[in-house]
Amino acid sequence: MRRNAIVAQSGGPSPVINASLLGVLEGCRDFPDHIDKVYAAWHGVEGILLEELIDMADQDPRELRLLRTTTSAGAVGTCRYKLTEGQAEDFQRIIDVMQAHEVGYFFYIGGNDSMDTAHKVSGLAAERGLELAATGVPKTIDNDVGDPGFRLIDHTPGYGSVARYWSYIVQNVNEENRGMNVSESVAVLQAMGRKSGWIPAASRLADPQRRMPLQMYFAEGFHTLDSLAENVNRELGRSGRCIVVVSEGFDVGGLGEMHDGFGHIEYGASRNTVAQAVVNYLNEVGLASRGYATGQVPGVLQRSTSIYASTVDIEEAYQVGRKAVEVGVGEGSGWMATILRDSDSPYSVRYDKVPLDQVAASARQLPPDWISADGLDVNDSFLRYARPLIGEDWPRIPIENGLQRFARLEIRFIEKKLPAYAPVRFR
Amino acid sequence: MRRNAIVAQSGGPSPVINASLLGVLEGCRDFPDHIDKVYAAWHGVEGILLEELIDMADQDPRELRLLRTTTSAGAVGTCRYKLTEGQAEDFQRIIDVMQAHEVGYFFYIGGNDSMDTAHKVSGLAAERGLELAATGVPKTIDNDVGDPGFRLIDHTPGYGSVARYWSYIVQNVNEENRGMNVSESVAVLQAMGRKSGWIPAASRLADPQRRMPLQMYFAEGFHTLDSLAENVNRELGRSGRCIVVVSEGFDVGGLGEMHDGFGHIEYGASRNTVAQAVVNYLNEVGLASRGYATGQVPGVLQRSTSIYASTVDIEEAYQVGRKAVEVGVGEGSGWMATILRDSDSPYSVRYDKVPLDQVAASARQLPPDWISADGLDVNDSFLRYARPLIGEDWPRIPIENGLQRFARLEIRFIEKKLPAYAPVRFR
Repeated sequence: MRRNAIVAQSGGPSPVINASLLGVLEGCRDFPDHIDKVYAAWHGVEGILLEELIDMADQDPRELRLLRTTTSAGAVGTCRYKLTEGQAEDFQRIIDVMQAHEVGYFFYIGGNDSMDTAHKVSGLAAERGLELAATGVPKTIDNDVGDPGFRLIDHTPGYGSVARYWSYIVQNVNEENRGMNVSESVAVLQAMGRKSGWIPAASRLADPQRRMPLQMYFAEGFHTLDSLAENVNRELGRSGRCIVVVSEGFDVGGLGEMHDGFGHIEYGASRNTVAQAVVNYLNEVGLASRGYATGQVPGVLQRSTSIYASTVDIEEAYQVGRKAVEVGVGEGSGWMATILRDSDSPYSVRYDKVPLDQVAASARQLPPDWISADGLDVNDSFLRYARPLIGEDWPRIPIENGLQRFARLEIRFIEKKLPAYAPVRFR
Repeated sequence: MRRNAIVAQSGGPSPVINASLLGVLEGCRDFPDHIDKVYAAWHGVEGILLEELIDMADQDPRELRLLRTTTSAGAVGTCRYKLTEGQAEDFQRIIDVMQAHEVGYFFYIGGNDSMDTAHKVSGLAAERGLELAATGVPKTIDNDVGDPGFRLIDHTPGYGSVARYWSYIVQNVNEENRGMNVSESVAVLQAMGRKSGWIPAASRLADPQRRMPLQMYFAEGFHTLDSLAENVNRELGRSGRCIVVVSEGFDVGGLGEMHDGFGHIEYGASRNTVAQAVVNYLNEVGLASRGYATGQVPGVLQRSTSIYASTVDIEEAYQVGRKAVEVGVGEGSGWMATILRDSDSPYSVRYDKVPLDQVAASARQLPPDWISADGLDVNDSFLRYARPLIGEDWPRIPIENGLQRFARLEIRFIEKKLPAYAPVRFR
């Protein structure tokens, strides 16, 4: 029996999240006997709760193809709406909406939290006798989904692109910092990643031969503001300049904290940034020579800048979306599509499936034995792992009238079949 | 009689400053009867004071050609060393070095301050009977060199590229902000430009049809934190989200200030950033609806990111470097090469010369009649002016082994002929 499908995005976007969306859409077309209509939920699970569903068959196919290189989640939206045990009404509503629209397939593009949600929806649907295949599509720039042994997933789509952002930006900043020399001797850059150092570690890709005066400070610990200043001064004594990439999860002590919808600390909204704390400390206490430190906080730019999308990441994000459909149709509910590595060089991966509940409970930091003894760098094991993920060349981001040509979808909701509903967290 | 030439860069870099350097180098080759050796001063005027001169004939020609697309000033360096009236010894030293190395041509790539320095060196050389043609090559991302009537210079090389950075970044952030919607409803971005709004104004190029919920806050005044919050809340009421591009010169009151070598306020080194002040104000006092504001401070990324170099800017930076040589050889001392616009559409410019002293004393803000009545936007006069400067397509930044291939020059100083010297500001 043909059923409809809902695809939804969740959490922070990436430059390739829409490639996964396109993969799901095109994957669904391969199963015309199983899947009828494909609805995108406007702003993820919020769109399901509010019954704001977009029929993707209404879209211009040329615009859909542009999703491959359309950064971020502006096309159909994402959200940070958290679904916890206490929100039985919300879960109920999700099932109601799925039933009302004859949905048999639910593809959820997201990180750990989203896999947890997908898992719960999958279980609840089964209890309610709804035949619903809930399938996860992995996505997070943080690369913190998965097990330390890389058996659940080798890396998450989105990470390769943010890794490429950092490897290129640090190359640029090295030219800048070398050019400015003693005048602006220390360039401090703040990288995303609350709990893991995967993102700052990617800076090392800018300089595999270790020629730049580059130091990384990870969320995994090792250093304090004090020892950071010591390290920087040592480098200034050696080369007269220094590039410091600091994780937003680096502990500088005493920063104001705010929390996002998932209860995580939201560093973008803190009273002060980690980079600024480092800059202030260096300029006021720390620098033992001429010059001063400047702070750079790219913030959402690192996850939204289209031209830094990795061609490898784009393709994998697309393929893992397609794979999710194959898994959902072929294996039923409760799986996440995954990427497993066969070989570093030549780089090759295969697409497979892992149980949602295993992914939901997973978390992965930088392997301790990939971090250098001084805690300021990653070693060649990291480079072997991460190098293939950034690809070889610039992606082709189409230009029209001198500007990037992103997909322009028609945001028109299908007819609602249920009474209006106020999501628990919106009340 | 053949004399040698010195070329030096000054102040903050741009993605096209090395294109001007290349223009000067190739320009010098056109005058073999006048110019013998071309020396680049390592880190600008500091390299002259310290007699750290690089013979550009020693460089691999393939590496020199790569200067065209090599961002920032890492190749031969720049500096923020300020030369004021009180530093007679420094000026003396400059003339001594020029004389010792038989220098007859001095090409100085920089902004207002540099044109002032070049002018003084030119005058002093004449007093001392040294035949020295000091010629300026304009460069500043701030676009604040020149007269309000655009008769001295239409725009400065470097501005087109930072304008392209902002027009593309704001496009990306619009996808991001639209995707996140109520969760992260306000994206605040801090743009460079201490005294003028040229850089934040370029955000408008991202959206000439004015469809995005985009607000700009200029250094030129008009708004306070209070009225900013009011404007943002109005936009949230309308579209649920807002993109705020705020000049580092926007007055938020009471920020700690530090000063660079030229005595300017150095916002990159302030205790807190303007963006963070705006974010804190919005999150703690200002936001009248769900969601929160996040801050982005690209800092030096906006002036160092190679892939945002404008193809138009690259070519003009190169040509104005060549023109400077033609002017220095043909007209003698005291000129700056300039770019004058013949037509907006089709866009065409010509290269000419203007007296250094006129440029040195100039300063240009956004024309008041290019700013919208509410002070939050620029109008179509600005778009007509700025649109041609960002070019049409991506520049070709060469890639090697997955990374940007920048010029790699040999930094080897020619033999010193004078006793060691400690620059006044280094004592």
